[in-house]
Amino acid sequence: MTSQVTGPAAMLAIALEEARKGFAEGGIPIGAALFGPDGRLLGRGRNRRVQDGDPSVHGETAAFRSAGRQRTYRGTTMATTLSPCWYCSGLIRQFGITGLVVGESRTFTGQHEWLAANGVNVTVLDSPECAELMTAFIAANPALWHEDIGEDS
Amino acid sequence: MTSQVTGPAAMLAIALEEARKGFAEGGIPIGAALFGPDGRLLGRGRNRRVQDGDPSVHGETAAFRSAGRQRTYRGTTMATTLSPCWYCSGLIRQFGITGLVVGESRTFTGQHEWLAANGVNVTVLDSPECAELMTAFIAANPALWHEDIGEDS
Repeated sequence: MTSQVTGPAAMLAIALEEARKGFAEGGIPIGAALFGPDGRLLGRGRNRRVQDGDPSVHGETAAFRSAGRQRTYRGTTMATTLSPCWYCSGLIRQFGITGLVVGESRTFTGQHEWLAANGVNVTVLDSPECAELMTAFIAANPALWHEDIGEDS
Repeated sequence: MTSQVTGPAAMLAIALEEARKGFAEGGIPIGAALFGPDGRLLGRGRNRRVQDGDPSVHGETAAFRSAGRQRTYRGTTMATTLSPCWYCSGLIRQFGITGLVVGESRTFTGQHEWLAANGVNVTVLDSPECAELMTAFIAANPALWHEDIGEDS
């Protein structure tokens, strides 16, 4: 992966590509991508609960896995289509991922404010495309969505 | 997997088996297991950063993945040989895993107290076997250990 992008909107665009692939596969449409300090794409991925039957693969953990082993995450930025849940926020905090770009936090308000309070450089873009994708998905699949965030229906 | 165990010590014993397998493989010796409300083993696993080149597989996330999709985690207990980092603590909190058994928190003090403050039923066993395994591993592989918890050396 040799792409190099600059700016939150360009980073989010790659995460949104992943989310749309997930939607087309019948999966939970959340995508993410991890970028190096120079804007180089390190990894990208999407939620794969449905596709792989694997509840551990959220968008952010998929992008993190795709990037492989890294000696440090200092200066990296995670872009995700949706405000990250505790699981993915814990990942970002533990590994010292420096920046976070959030597509939207309307359909689910995760822990991006907690991350900001703990030193992560957070940008929320409030993207209509991201929100429309999740709104359509949740309306059609409420039980699946609740399963993915550990909420009893 | 049909094993059924009761009590924190028996749960930890399975996590410790996983950690020892990881040690024998040259991996980071942290293991975990997830149990249902009735003590049935739902999933077990170990850190696989070295074995699979996959930084997303901590002991706890491996056990969670191994358990497959679950409709709810209410009443489940995660046993882990080591106090869980933010990543794994976020997992436990997001999915509402009810109980946590920690082998030891001497070699690394993760977020078990944060989880307890947020309603998780936490038991710390202060196991000498768990502590000796991690102490030996960290002494021999400090850079690998720092990589696994996202600390710059």
